[in-house]
Amino acid sequence: MSDIEGVAPGEAVSVDVVAFGPDGLVPAVVVDEDDQVLMLAYMDAEALRRTLRDGRTWFYSRSRRTYWAKGETSGAVQEVRSVTTDCDGDALLVRVRQRGVGACHTGAWSCFMHPVLGQS
Amino acid sequence: MSDIEGVAPGEAVSVDVVAFGPDGLVPAVVVDEDDQVLMLAYMDAEALRRTLRDGRTWFYSRSRRTYWAKGETSGAVQEVRSVTTDCDGDALLVRVRQRGVGACHTGAWSCFMHPVLGQS
Repeated sequence: MSDIEGVAPGEAVSVDVVAFGPDGLVPAVVVDEDDQVLMLAYMDAEALRRTLRDGRTWFYSRSRRTYWAKGETSGAVQEVRSVTTDCDGDALLVRVRQRGVGACHTGAWSCFMHPVLGQS
Repeated sequence: MSDIEGVAPGEAVSVDVVAFGPDGLVPAVVVDEDDQVLMLAYMDAEALRRTLRDGRTWFYSRSRRTYWAKGETSGAVQEVRSVTTDCDGDALLVRVRQRGVGACHTGAWSCFMHPVLGQS
């Protein structure tokens, strides 16, 4: 049963509004409840459907060519609060309640950690 | 002259830490100073170099196959405060001071506006 903002329990949701790319994917920006950007990963229609169905984030791994449920092994589950597309439908913004130590496999809260600096 | 956080005026910056994709691009998530996600667009190495050089966002348009300077015609310029990569270097987080009416071509502050809801 979905606990997603604006989705009544059992309400059908559609992924038709999303403009998946030629590879079937869209980038999904995951933010926490304080709007901090946690990570960016990719969803196809099936990953988005699973996310909406389970109320937890599912992604599609481009390198491993498989679906993965965030936090399945680490416990760092992302409980989905809302999913929004942008003006042309080719990107997703997923607001979550982040569980566990954080979103990053390094143990950090956010994956975004490396300043783009240095000598060219 | 750059006004980017952590970059001394005239300091050389490098894009070598970024893992551009097979198409030469990385997604760039643009957030404002309150961390609200404004938009997602793509940069290649040249767009990132221009962004770091000018302190204003440059992107690469996949559909038009050309560079574009955000706000060049609209005035909705994005003054860059910081640029960060994620743990595996294949996504960028760009913090900006958004000028003008907002980031979206519709006139909205953020491009993320459409809930993923409806009947499937």
